[in-house]
Amino acid sequence: MASIPKLNAEETFTLITRDLDEVLGADNLKALIAKNDRPLRAYWGTAPTSRPHIGYFVALTKIADFLQAGVQVKVLLADIHAFLDNLKAPIELVRHRVDFYQRILISVFKAIGVPTERLTFVVGSSYQLTPEYTMDVYRTAALTTEHDCKKAGAEVVKQVASPLLSSMLYPGLQALDEQYLDVDFQFGGVDQRKIFTYAEALLPKLGYAKRSHLMNPMVPGLKGSKMSSSDHGSKIDFLDPAESVRSKIKSAVCEPKSTPADGNGVLAFAKAVLFPVSRLRAEAAGGEGIAEPFVPADAPKGTLFTIALPEKFGGGVLNFAEYSELERAFVAGEVHPADLKKGVADALVKLLAPVQKAFLGDEEWQKVEKLAYPPPEEPEKKKKAKKINPRHPPKAGVTTAPTDGQAAEVSKEGAEALANGVEKMGVDGK
Amino acid sequence: MASIPKLNAEETFTLITRDLDEVLGADNLKALIAKNDRPLRAYWGTAPTSRPHIGYFVALTKIADFLQAGVQVKVLLADIHAFLDNLKAPIELVRHRVDFYQRILISVFKAIGVPTERLTFVVGSSYQLTPEYTMDVYRTAALTTEHDCKKAGAEVVKQVASPLLSSMLYPGLQALDEQYLDVDFQFGGVDQRKIFTYAEALLPKLGYAKRSHLMNPMVPGLKGSKMSSSDHGSKIDFLDPAESVRSKIKSAVCEPKSTPADGNGVLAFAKAVLFPVSRLRAEAAGGEGIAEPFVPADAPKGTLFTIALPEKFGGGVLNFAEYSELERAFVAGEVHPADLKKGVADALVKLLAPVQKAFLGDEEWQKVEKLAYPPPEEPEKKKKAKKINPRHPPKAGVTTAPTDGQAAEVSKEGAEALANGVEKMGVDGK
Repeated sequence: MASIPKLNAEETFTLITRDLDEVLGADNLKALIAKNDRPLRAYWGTAPTSRPHIGYFVALTKIADFLQAGVQVKVLLADIHAFLDNLKAPIELVRHRVDFYQRILISVFKAIGVPTERLTFVVGSSYQLTPEYTMDVYRTAALTTEHDCKKAGAEVVKQVASPLLSSMLYPGLQALDEQYLDVDFQFGGVDQRKIFTYAEALLPKLGYAKRSHLMNPMVPGLKGSKMSSSDHGSKIDFLDPAESVRSKIKSAVCEPKSTPADGNGVLAFAKAVLFPVSRLRAEAAGGEGIAEPFVPADAPKGTLFTIALPEKFGGGVLNFAEYSELERAFVAGEVHPADLKKGVADALVKLLAPVQKAFLGDEEWQKVEKLAYPPPEEPEKKKKAKKINPRHPPKAGVTTAPTDGQAAEVSKEGAEALANGVEKMGVDGK
Repeated sequence: MASIPKLNAEETFTLITRDLDEVLGADNLKALIAKNDRPLRAYWGTAPTSRPHIGYFVALTKIADFLQAGVQVKVLLADIHAFLDNLKAPIELVRHRVDFYQRILISVFKAIGVPTERLTFVVGSSYQLTPEYTMDVYRTAALTTEHDCKKAGAEVVKQVASPLLSSMLYPGLQALDEQYLDVDFQFGGVDQRKIFTYAEALLPKLGYAKRSHLMNPMVPGLKGSKMSSSDHGSKIDFLDPAESVRSKIKSAVCEPKSTPADGNGVLAFAKAVLFPVSRLRAEAAGGEGIAEPFVPADAPKGTLFTIALPEKFGGGVLNFAEYSELERAFVAGEVHPADLKKGVADALVKLLAPVQKAFLGDEEWQKVEKLAYPPPEEPEKKKKAKKINPRHPPKAGVTTAPTDGQAAEVSKEGAEALANGVEKMGVDGK
């Protein structure tokens, strides 16, 4: 594990809040850091609905700062909501996905190179179905109007004329999780802002403390919009082989001279992930389990990112000590999109290498992956969809997506709104 | 206990469904009665928010038919919702109110004169906070749009621009209760119709059986509208002394020649309660615990209701063998409103007598009543309202209604919509 450098209160606060888009309740955090009688506690939530992809790096990179600063970080694996999102998929699949998410996230943190002993995973069903929690859900419902819900979810819940009740429950659950996970702050994308301010208003009404909220900027995906699990063209899996990673980045949107604000997802990824990870590695020098650095050994001190130029155009390298230098050079036309893509792909392949190595060396994990994401059935074998009784769900691997009537209604309308409500709970940069 | 006369299948169905406004799923009930391998099972729900009043007689009288027909009846005492309705009142009060409701309802059934060995009380919190139930609440939320909720609650939930989330949850909970209370049918007022049809559509989607629904007609209160706990002028308490009952009925709305359809609550009460109870007593002749009959011993055989005429106008009695005779006579001007009121008051006082006798002879029950309904504090002693932490609620009897800010918001907005959503769940005729 990487060693944690000794930081004073100001340095700790700076490390926790750097690169963020917004901090609500900074004073409270400063006071807790100054008091210094226990580690800070934070939570970030994600629903293990499908396969995690490299869009998660954006949140994980910032979480790595928290860990580096000594914060106790809880990752909430919202299995109940993932199950609800997937009424068509039996609860068994979700259980295996929880397992898969946990393994990949730990492996990614190790690859980033931060200490993980203060990282814990909490499965939603371990506390969200208790009488105490449920009673608080009802109390919350009695304090929340339809208008409040819609306002809170405006930026993360798909806006439809008549939303599902489940999508209206999420802001409340997300607020209660702060209390039940016993944290000082919740972390998420800035798209969560309205849910966060709703939580700040709600908890005191229930007799609980108001929490702080730390928000990441939104990051465009490789297709120029938010990277999404359901958009296969823009999705790079943590376990994609190097050639697939390179080919996907090659086909990414990266207009000459454009910035992340213009939708340049390649530059955005360098900004939100590669530079910060490289910086963290430098800060936590001497740690174990870290892949080879992104920069060659002979690069100038302070270099965080390097682009190797093609031999046919003379070769050589471009070294960058901070992201703004790269963006300036790219906007000035001094860096060609193809070279930027190559540099990003090189770094990403290096970043992913230890994750893939860990996966390939772990038979148990490979077994979990097969259980969590069983291969789709052959179309000719497709059976008539049955009504689903979750008390007696069909065995994993033999379930087909429902194709008719009621069951299809569940999987389509129900799951869709749930996905919109929950999957984006704390995952930014998708 | 009254003996249960042997009834054939057709008689049983007739007894169960007589006087109802509507029956959904009659065929299913007929099939179960014909099969005859176990007693039918039914539920009726009420939230012990305030004091039960004689408006409850309307539902209880119909429930007496069920009991008489051998149906196993569960009365759901929805304590959680009563608590939510009363965030200002500590959970201790609600616990005592559950106790009070149970005692008074049993006593009323005894007064009506039906067997109570097939009557059970189920407290909501005994199953509504279990993980299994809660998971079904979330599954329901994922199958229910805002539009569905509003449509289902249109007649029982106060229509406001932005309803509370809690009021939108009730139709789903009320549907799930049918499954968790394991009943064949739910009983309620016809104002519940849209919730009932919603339940019929929902349960099969969750893999559960669709239940039948039996609906009572709506009955105007003594002020001409639905009798309400919050309208003290129209409310007659089960424990009101005879003189108070007489005086309240004297001041009731009872326009000459008007019918229940015109809002004549006195005639409506005779129709929905006094005639049916009198009929039940005749049917269950020989039962114990029944108060003296409403009709004098020398009345003609088959008389269900008698009005004694004032001595100053010559005295004598009017005997009625069925309600339609009374209504005809009243509409024809043959019965003066004052005489009708006197006849209704006489019968009601007789009906309430054993309930009051039981209460006065039961010190334990009197203690429960004091705990459930502590006298309001003197205005000059009124303390500053505190924020409520239900985990550590103040002791019963020292709570004041919140008068400021947040707490008041809870008690006003929150409780109001809850009352509208829950209290009317299964209680008609209020």
